[in-house]
Amino acid sequence: MKPIQVGLLGIGTVGSGTFKVLRRNQEEIQRRAGRGIEIAMVADLDVARARALVGDGVRVVADAREVIANPEIDIVVELIGGYGIARALVMEAIAAGKHVVTANKALLAVHGTEIFAAAREQGVMVAFEAAVAGGIPIIKALREGLTANRIEWIAGIINGTTNFILSEMRDKGLDFASVLKEAQRLGYAEADPTFDIEGVDAAHKVTLMSAIAFGIPVQFDKAHVEGITALQAADITYAEQLGYRIKLLGITRRRDDKGGIELRVHPTLVPATRLIANVEGAMNAVVVQADAVGATLYYGKGAGSEPTASAVVADLVDITRLHSADPHHRVPHLAFQPDALAATPILPMAEVVTAFYLRLQVADQAGVLARITGILAGQGISIDALLQRPAAPTTGAPAGEGPRTDVIILTHATVEGEMNRAIAEMQALPTVLAPIVRLRKESLS
Amino acid sequence: MKPIQVGLLGIGTVGSGTFKVLRRNQEEIQRRAGRGIEIAMVADLDVARARALVGDGVRVVADAREVIANPEIDIVVELIGGYGIARALVMEAIAAGKHVVTANKALLAVHGTEIFAAAREQGVMVAFEAAVAGGIPIIKALREGLTANRIEWIAGIINGTTNFILSEMRDKGLDFASVLKEAQRLGYAEADPTFDIEGVDAAHKVTLMSAIAFGIPVQFDKAHVEGITALQAADITYAEQLGYRIKLLGITRRRDDKGGIELRVHPTLVPATRLIANVEGAMNAVVVQADAVGATLYYGKGAGSEPTASAVVADLVDITRLHSADPHHRVPHLAFQPDALAATPILPMAEVVTAFYLRLQVADQAGVLARITGILAGQGISIDALLQRPAAPTTGAPAGEGPRTDVIILTHATVEGEMNRAIAEMQALPTVLAPIVRLRKESLS
Repeated sequence: MKPIQVGLLGIGTVGSGTFKVLRRNQEEIQRRAGRGIEIAMVADLDVARARALVGDGVRVVADAREVIANPEIDIVVELIGGYGIARALVMEAIAAGKHVVTANKALLAVHGTEIFAAAREQGVMVAFEAAVAGGIPIIKALREGLTANRIEWIAGIINGTTNFILSEMRDKGLDFASVLKEAQRLGYAEADPTFDIEGVDAAHKVTLMSAIAFGIPVQFDKAHVEGITALQAADITYAEQLGYRIKLLGITRRRDDKGGIELRVHPTLVPATRLIANVEGAMNAVVVQADAVGATLYYGKGAGSEPTASAVVADLVDITRLHSADPHHRVPHLAFQPDALAATPILPMAEVVTAFYLRLQVADQAGVLARITGILAGQGISIDALLQRPAAPTTGAPAGEGPRTDVIILTHATVEGEMNRAIAEMQALPTVLAPIVRLRKESLS
Repeated sequence: MKPIQVGLLGIGTVGSGTFKVLRRNQEEIQRRAGRGIEIAMVADLDVARARALVGDGVRVVADAREVIANPEIDIVVELIGGYGIARALVMEAIAAGKHVVTANKALLAVHGTEIFAAAREQGVMVAFEAAVAGGIPIIKALREGLTANRIEWIAGIINGTTNFILSEMRDKGLDFASVLKEAQRLGYAEADPTFDIEGVDAAHKVTLMSAIAFGIPVQFDKAHVEGITALQAADITYAEQLGYRIKLLGITRRRDDKGGIELRVHPTLVPATRLIANVEGAMNAVVVQADAVGATLYYGKGAGSEPTASAVVADLVDITRLHSADPHHRVPHLAFQPDALAATPILPMAEVVTAFYLRLQVADQAGVLARITGILAGQGISIDALLQRPAAPTTGAPAGEGPRTDVIILTHATVEGEMNRAIAEMQALPTVLAPIVRLRKESLS
């Protein structure tokens, strides 16, 4: 049988990895898929570079639309990224009856509803294993491996750049800005790292996982997105002393008490004994809590040329098996049948329940602690642990002022709205001398 | 559409879990599968107990063959276990044109070739996610998630009983026998724990993973199987001091230099910093090293009623989707197309390459260490670390004899045959006063 014909849109990092992996492992892949898989055509603006990469025998064009228009092409792989041209090309490929594989989390988290509906209409598949956690087959685990379960929550380290930065901050006691520079020098952070360090990339990914886990449409606009740029070395140290690590987690949780779903990305204190707390450097890991199986964890490289290509090619093999099958033999895009999606709302942050880490810089005088703990008690917030330390050098008093002290408080689970009110009250105290640092804490048990 | 009709053979721990999960999550499962899945019939020798479990509306019979003969039944779930009757029933179910789901690793590791051939002949699926690592979707990850890759090796904690025992031995400094008793009391070990503690259960599972990873037939009879019954508390302590944990690992590795495959289960020293070294209690975890994606790890509950049921039901959903599809739309039983399996041999243990941990109890006198290190050097074995300690109380000298000392040696990677010769030579030294303890060590990097 003729190999299945693949057209690549964009041959940058992931595209060249896909090309290399398919070529290097072609014999093994064919032994699995039962049919060869061949990149027959590549579109890239830099035609010369693309040609140098793929050599002879593969047609290289500048215009992606030539790939889409080619009736020989069975599957279009979109690796351009972004919401603009990528969106138009994916929609055109679907309209042309092509199956689509994409690593574009931004596109799917924002425009997934439109894209999946068009694909359904045309009877084609849109596969996106590479969009979340790179080479870790987490989409497959969620969509197929855990179908027996009512999923309760997902928490993931799904951005390697920020996990690398946090690991370095902890290891070396450095602040965010200097570690970022080092990460850029080493290639772990892009020249414009905004999407990573502000949590946007992680929010795209957790939005996709949330939809698949709970059978809801993708709703990136409802996600709470908070990055790591404001994190201070002092808080990493205090967290450590209390037995916690700080990780940027993408979290989504079913809240039956509110009939809604939490969807959020923020730095999070995690008990240091948890496996996920020990995921270091640029690695990714996702924990899924589900009613029958309990907690499962999936770990691996979340980015990079060949790890991401591994996911792209796995999708190509899946499509090679099923491209001529009836649509009802295929796994639905978002795990649930499209007519069985639910309208469960995403909860506003004020209704989210987490525990908290607070750091207050206070005047070192009698009665201060009593006022603070009184305010927390007034909001019904109970305290799990309290640490009082001379203010860290980086956060200490300007010369000539009175002595200051850091008060660190861990709370039990609290409704975020109540915490907001408590923080406003505490911040208004004249003995609270600096903006209160507030981080969320999850036990993940 | 009428729900797909499932017949359960055996309703013990996993069977009752399967029944409960399917009933509790039926709405959610149907929203995913696009069709209801219903246990219509149960066979169990204890009819009264089975009836009490499933209630009215499910036919309960004593004779499994009544389930197989029922033309209404689409899928037969075999949860009887063992090689005897289970084998006959699975073969009869296949002959009757039923799809089969089984959690029976022993059966598949020994008779898989025959069973998969019969299934192919009849055009039915035999699904066995539950046979390895309980609720962790590791079969799916290997068969589908990592299809792009040339898999290099797999190392897994795939027996919860032994991992629980090893965790307890380490935590409490107790010896094997007393921890086993405690594990039996708590239900973590069976009344007859032989298959678990002797490594047989883990060997069944790693045999299945090996076949799927490397495209070879199942060959349980070629596996090296070594359990934890001979492990001493002293070695756990010494390993700890050297920065290692001891885990019972199922390991399979491609050895291109020998054109063969390693397949083995044995207690293994693993660097304490590795994620898998920190998998405690009855939990399971599998690390897969593959050329494109690098290392990925899968963690979760490897046994128990609902975790195992989670895997059984995931298989039921997969079959519900594909039961009426052409066979070429389905994933091959062993990941590779049946006509593309390779005859790569399993290597004998003498050709396996690992690092080693040795403990020698020697007379505390001059020249002993020189003799030992000389023997190792003579076999071309290089030393990675050496520790000399007063003999541990449990391994110390009988009263009235001269002073003894424990010498602990970590070697670099060594061919096992050479190590065997070195150990024989060292054991023959008059200054080596007790049987040499030898454990294997893997860096898993």
